[in-house]
Amino acid sequence: MGRDLTALFDPGSVAVVGASDDPAKYGHAVASQALRAPARRPVHLVNRRGGTVLGRTAAPSLAAIGEPVELVVISVPGAGFEAAVDDALACGAKAIVGITAGFAEAGPEGLARQRAVAARVRAAGAVLVGPNCLGIADNTTELYLASDRFAPGGIALLSQSGNLALELQLRAAPHGLGFSRFVSLGNQADVTLVDLVEDCARHEATAAIAVYAEDFGDGRAFARAAAAAGKPVVLLTAGRGAASARSAQSHTGALTTSADVVAAACHDAGIELVHTPREMTVVLAALSAGPRTNGRRTAVFTDGGGHGAIAADAAEDAGLDVPELGARAQERLRSVLWGQSAVGNPVDLAGMGEQNPLSYADTIAELLAADEVDAVLMTGYFGGYAASEGGLGGGSAGGSTGGADGRADGGPAGGPDGGPDGGSALAQGEQRAARAIVTHLAAAPKPLVVQSMYPQSPSCRILAGAGVPVFAATEDAARALAAMTARRAAGTPGLPALPAPAGPLRDAGYHGVRALLDSAGVPFPPAREITDESQLLAAAAEFDGPYVLKALHLLHKSDAGGVALRLADTDALLAAHRDMHARLGAPSYSVEAMADLTDGIELIVGVNRDPRFGPVAMVGLGGVLTETLRDVAFSLAPVPARRAEELLRGLRTAALLAGVRGRPAVDVAAAAAVIERVTAVAAAHPEIAELEVNPLLVRPDGAVALDARAVLL
Amino acid sequence: MGRDLTALFDPGSVAVVGASDDPAKYGHAVASQALRAPARRPVHLVNRRGGTVLGRTAAPSLAAIGEPVELVVISVPGAGFEAAVDDALACGAKAIVGITAGFAEAGPEGLARQRAVAARVRAAGAVLVGPNCLGIADNTTELYLASDRFAPGGIALLSQSGNLALELQLRAAPHGLGFSRFVSLGNQADVTLVDLVEDCARHEATAAIAVYAEDFGDGRAFARAAAAAGKPVVLLTAGRGAASARSAQSHTGALTTSADVVAAACHDAGIELVHTPREMTVVLAALSAGPRTNGRRTAVFTDGGGHGAIAADAAEDAGLDVPELGARAQERLRSVLWGQSAVGNPVDLAGMGEQNPLSYADTIAELLAADEVDAVLMTGYFGGYAASEGGLGGGSAGGSTGGADGRADGGPAGGPDGGPDGGSALAQGEQRAARAIVTHLAAAPKPLVVQSMYPQSPSCRILAGAGVPVFAATEDAARALAAMTARRAAGTPGLPALPAPAGPLRDAGYHGVRALLDSAGVPFPPAREITDESQLLAAAAEFDGPYVLKALHLLHKSDAGGVALRLADTDALLAAHRDMHARLGAPSYSVEAMADLTDGIELIVGVNRDPRFGPVAMVGLGGVLTETLRDVAFSLAPVPARRAEELLRGLRTAALLAGVRGRPAVDVAAAAAVIERVTAVAAAHPEIAELEVNPLLVRPDGAVALDARAVLL
Repeated sequence: MGRDLTALFDPGSVAVVGASDDPAKYGHAVASQALRAPARRPVHLVNRRGGTVLGRTAAPSLAAIGEPVELVVISVPGAGFEAAVDDALACGAKAIVGITAGFAEAGPEGLARQRAVAARVRAAGAVLVGPNCLGIADNTTELYLASDRFAPGGIALLSQSGNLALELQLRAAPHGLGFSRFVSLGNQADVTLVDLVEDCARHEATAAIAVYAEDFGDGRAFARAAAAAGKPVVLLTAGRGAASARSAQSHTGALTTSADVVAAACHDAGIELVHTPREMTVVLAALSAGPRTNGRRTAVFTDGGGHGAIAADAAEDAGLDVPELGARAQERLRSVLWGQSAVGNPVDLAGMGEQNPLSYADTIAELLAADEVDAVLMTGYFGGYAASEGGLGGGSAGGSTGGADGRADGGPAGGPDGGPDGGSALAQGEQRAARAIVTHLAAAPKPLVVQSMYPQSPSCRILAGAGVPVFAATEDAARALAAMTARRAAGTPGLPALPAPAGPLRDAGYHGVRALLDSAGVPFPPAREITDESQLLAAAAEFDGPYVLKALHLLHKSDAGGVALRLADTDALLAAHRDMHARLGAPSYSVEAMADLTDGIELIVGVNRDPRFGPVAMVGLGGVLTETLRDVAFSLAPVPARRAEELLRGLRTAALLAGVRGRPAVDVAAAAAVIERVTAVAAAHPEIAELEVNPLLVRPDGAVALDARAVLL
Repeated sequence: MGRDLTALFDPGSVAVVGASDDPAKYGHAVASQALRAPARRPVHLVNRRGGTVLGRTAAPSLAAIGEPVELVVISVPGAGFEAAVDDALACGAKAIVGITAGFAEAGPEGLARQRAVAARVRAAGAVLVGPNCLGIADNTTELYLASDRFAPGGIALLSQSGNLALELQLRAAPHGLGFSRFVSLGNQADVTLVDLVEDCARHEATAAIAVYAEDFGDGRAFARAAAAAGKPVVLLTAGRGAASARSAQSHTGALTTSADVVAAACHDAGIELVHTPREMTVVLAALSAGPRTNGRRTAVFTDGGGHGAIAADAAEDAGLDVPELGARAQERLRSVLWGQSAVGNPVDLAGMGEQNPLSYADTIAELLAADEVDAVLMTGYFGGYAASEGGLGGGSAGGSTGGADGRADGGPAGGPDGGPDGGSALAQGEQRAARAIVTHLAAAPKPLVVQSMYPQSPSCRILAGAGVPVFAATEDAARALAAMTARRAAGTPGLPALPAPAGPLRDAGYHGVRALLDSAGVPFPPAREITDESQLLAAAAEFDGPYVLKALHLLHKSDAGGVALRLADTDALLAAHRDMHARLGAPSYSVEAMADLTDGIELIVGVNRDPRFGPVAMVGLGGVLTETLRDVAFSLAPVPARRAEELLRGLRTAALLAGVRGRPAVDVAAAAAVIERVTAVAAAHPEIAELEVNPLLVRPDGAVALDARAVLL
């Protein structure tokens, strides 16, 4: 499945139209790069003036090359783009990379031109990247058709921004990261982000897919492709604030998606969402290394109490847990450490490292062996013993520890007894410890991330060389570990499939929506739609009071006084109807049995159809709290009950569901089941723009929908 | 005011007791450093074996030196510490730096020894830093008595962790930061953090004070000293999570303070609170540079849309505002930019920089001139034009921009018309732009921070050289700008002074507490304490119903059914009393007029006396929300009404106060006035451990306390 992009990433021949000797022209940069691998495939340079370009004879046109060309890069002024595409197709091109700008991003006229040219490309059985892109590169096929060099490695970078791609490329090297492919997405007139994610998922040399995007095109398909990729997908995007949304809209003219929806899609698809290039690099470094788990119980291990405390906070900030270790684990740690070491978590050598550098490795072995530890964050000085001797450090003379870091008597004070080994022995011991850590890790693989003041030290290089991510900054180490522990547990609900569309909803009035939801198993109190008093009396005879009366076909019926609650009997019902009808003159009314609100909590469940990501569910506390706290959670619809329960339990006010101040807990499972049904209905009805049940009353003994509305597209 | 620390930071002579040739001994490192400035003052090395140390004759004892010594560093095994101190005092020492460990951090016995020795030092009119410290340094007096070298500069670093100080020292250099002083706090047996902050505030060469602390000692005094320092104080501390609090407790044996209280104290004292060494360095770099403001309206200025959007989000995450610019500012920007530039904010050159590098400077000039812009964050490629030519960059051939970054026709496509200047001209133009930016900034000083992919480029070095903070990471730039815009506005309530203690509260029962608060002007509904039915009837005759009846002298009277509300008349009151008395048998009861709850919101105001920071106020929404949302805010008490209103308006549920769903707004000013009075009472009563008014009912027409309680120490 997915489009065949072989001609794009491994063409038999390449031509660069607009190749130039002028270093200020983009066609110069692309042509220079294209010529880096002359033996791999024929590379033709085309310049309308002919002559020579970069010391080679340039063809004055594609036709003048005299043989078919499989991939054509077009970097000519805007007016000449369509002609160049036609020439390329005439030459048998199966892939075109359109550098030329001035299309969809320039307005409706450009969009029309872009659509027309993309249709011609597709009709010819070819593919088009761009236009308005910066080129592509594939290090695994020696294909270099972008201005920047990307060091080889396992990351496929798909980016809607050239400058951000450049920053990511600059940031990758220090982490030992490189790239399998780079694609500048441009306007995605033909080849889309989704096509590329699918192709990179199949691409063996790609270990992780990194995306910068502002417009997700078919966001749902993107999420689906990412969920199915079988390798990490990391997404950098903006739009959390009003300003960035404004910016993305203004400079791409694109539909932007609310940050809540993007975050929900990433969660459901297992995409790592990041907010800055630096964070993206940190997460890529983490995901390119070591094992992953779905457990977040983290042991923080340090050689200085200050670093341990700072790292414990950073780990918790990153969503990790740093629980106190159990008695047995503490006992085992005690067996390899000395008396003043802390073993509760953070675990602090407190001077033991200078006594015996192998205590670093012994401690890690114990932590890796402990069932209650999912992952280890080592932080502090490690690396410094060897670094300061090798001249890599900052001029520290040896340990340079103590004070509040817990080095007690004998260590820093340097008395004749109990003093540490000589510096050189310490440096050697530290490197032995690094090798021992690597051995322990191979025997008991768990995520291990290191923060070191000396990340380039020989000891840290031993760790990094074995795939242990090493960072200079505590917050980076914590973020990396969070990424390594975010693997989806087996059986976790993944991306929900969209159901086949059901027959369209004809009656989007209140009772039409109720009927639709009722047929899907959503419980409502008994209700009848009535238009006069005789129907009202008939309805009241069908079920017991107290009653509710709602005026129908009014906007904001509550605000307008169109809802009367707690009508004890038929008389009260009649009186309410007369009053309401006199005030509002609604065409019809709903007579309903009033639900028992005792110990109940009002929830809200709504589904909006996002133009990019399709139906997206929102659940939260109903009533005034929804508005003031915005205590809501999002997920792509349909939402399985298990995920719905997760969403409810994750609300800030979730404690209300469990019962506070002696109130009984409500039936969250029943509410989750209703949410599953409501969201499934919405997902099966593409004609419904919004579907909302509000309030969804959840009580200790079940859940019932008290009101519902739909808005058709 | 403050202690005289001249002998500590600029002694006439120095001796290092425990000086050693053994590089594994701390006394070796200190002695080596001490000898770096032999001409400044006599430096004596003392080793009990005599002989030579570091090529100099060592005295076998302090007495053997044969002349007075003003400052003595003691780095001997624990058992010898007290004797060394006595020797030092006998030699006339006025300052002692105690490296030796094994005191308060080792347990109660060590604490007792430490107290005794500190008392002897003080009795001799001397000062003691430590024990269990790593030494001190003062670059302004060539005093080097710690193992690490600190490059000279304006930062005084006071640290409870040696390793974190080392990391900060390693991180400082790349930002052009250096140190005036370094003090390892150790156990603060005599010289405290507060003494040092006060002294560094007076120290002309110190521009900013950086603190790492876990135990604040007299936290209130620390906050007071920082607020009065007249220069930035930046605090790195841990303790936000349970693990770090556990760690700090275990390795310093110190009293730790809740993160809420520390954050409140920092806010009130104007201390910049940071969470990692990296963040501390970023904030120090920001505060060491450029002007500061109290306005947060930030213009994000970029040469690539992707960077603009990412930076706008990062700025908002950091607490800055990124509002759309007004019509007039946009018009002025248009006058210096081209058609495809975005001027709404983010402002995006969109290719203009390659046309005319001075457009970077022109844009910044316009932004600095706009009244609606408090600060500017420039982000993206700037620096790259010169960097890639100078070989500093990552191999980019010139602009390397386009695609979704908004470069339209003519730019990246590189047509014959409208192409950019040659690369070298671009590089020169960029550096001219950097110089022009510096000129504009001098003429209209506002905070400007730069994120660049090429922070070491010639253009960025021009900016950095003129005091503009330049960072590689977007989030660092945003954090720095947030620090530069956090200056306290004139007239902002600062750190509240503690009132003189009032006469102690004798009766901490409900009516005693009411009387205390009532006398301070806190409004309550009428109430009488009664012990029998005749008193009950007399009370009911004094004011109208409906009534409230409360059982007194019970814990958790609400949960026990000891509160009856809405008692319509005397009969209902009598019935409630009989029922309650039968069930609870409380010794007395309170009969109260029931307040009108219509349109009211229940708040809570409490004051706890923190062992470190004294009385700390908490305000928030009352009732169930307090427990489930923890929607509360903290401030040092007493809290002026203006600050109380700020706290209330900053609650997550603050929208409730302004009225939602047609409810009227409540009288926040009245609530704030009550908070001022309650917190002033608590602050004036050091014998009260906890004082709480809950609920504090605030209605559209005022605020009234409905219940109160106090816990004595």
